[in-house]
Amino acid sequence: MAHIDLKNDLPGIRGPMAYRPETAKHLNNLAEVLLHDDNNTLPRGERELIGAYVSSLNDCFYCQNVHGAMAQHYLQCDMAAVDQVKKDFNAAPLTDKLKALLAIAASVQKGGKFVTAEQIQNAKESGATDIEIHDTVLIAAAFCMFNRYVDGLGTWAPSDRQLYMDRAKWRADEGYADIDLYK
Amino acid sequence: MAHIDLKNDLPGIRGPMAYRPETAKHLNNLAEVLLHDDNNTLPRGERELIGAYVSSLNDCFYCQNVHGAMAQHYLQCDMAAVDQVKKDFNAAPLTDKLKALLAIAASVQKGGKFVTAEQIQNAKESGATDIEIHDTVLIAAAFCMFNRYVDGLGTWAPSDRQLYMDRAKWRADEGYADIDLYK
Repeated sequence: MAHIDLKNDLPGIRGPMAYRPETAKHLNNLAEVLLHDDNNTLPRGERELIGAYVSSLNDCFYCQNVHGAMAQHYLQCDMAAVDQVKKDFNAAPLTDKLKALLAIAASVQKGGKFVTAEQIQNAKESGATDIEIHDTVLIAAAFCMFNRYVDGLGTWAPSDRQLYMDRAKWRADEGYADIDLYK
Repeated sequence: MAHIDLKNDLPGIRGPMAYRPETAKHLNNLAEVLLHDDNNTLPRGERELIGAYVSSLNDCFYCQNVHGAMAQHYLQCDMAAVDQVKKDFNAAPLTDKLKALLAIAASVQKGGKFVTAEQIQNAKESGATDIEIHDTVLIAAAFCMFNRYVDGLGTWAPSDRQLYMDRAKWRADEGYADIDLYK
């Protein structure tokens, strides 16, 4: 049970979002630009993977499964492949660029000052543009917010990972902006 | 110098915000609802103080001074009083309710799961409403994002704290939504 009476029994972030639509609107609009908007040279699947990875570092079950399921949907892999990234992305079959961006995301999760000039240089040398580095930092930072919002209010999450996968295609079609939280 | 070429020399979060207005818009709209909107039973000064406190825990010089200056402006105190809160809020002349909310914010800064049922109970018993607890969690979570965004991109910040205080009244009048980042 959540720490406060959310007036609904929705899982994860959907509970506090439905409780406080005034803030939910901007959180969802931010997620739309960062994760779903096609005007971005980072593929949706890679952006979702960064979010899922940071959520796993923050030990947020709900977010890592929602966004892990989104990543496997876009990247056309299975959840085991996503789990491998969360466990050791350097050993996963990813491009050097994505590995460099995940290393930056891992530093952001610890704190902004953990990002090193060497990590940035490595990302640039592997082909990451400035805006891709910007978005990686902001995606990682935003998930440090989303994860804390979800767990700081003690929301509940379905334990069956299949349920997250079942919703992924629909969420990919709908996006994050102006969503019906009750659907 | 920032880790990427932001195409401007603005300090702190204004640099990446001007670089990427598509995300800045939603970040500022979120800040507006959480910190500036008067449709809230938590006074603006207390909400800014929570943001400044979390920013100090995250060691973000820019954010703790921007929002510390906002807090001292609204609360009509000096920066030394804000510094006392950052150092030891339990020893500061604050209400029991605000101390209980700051304790929750400190846990959120560590991670969502650090918030305890006892902290929530304490906040409720000292008069905090559910929505005030919600907003405290989200303000603390949002500053974990803002702080990481600012420091993760290696932005610069003016060292003279008076400059932050000089801007506080103007920012209080303008709010955060639809701001001109170059002013």
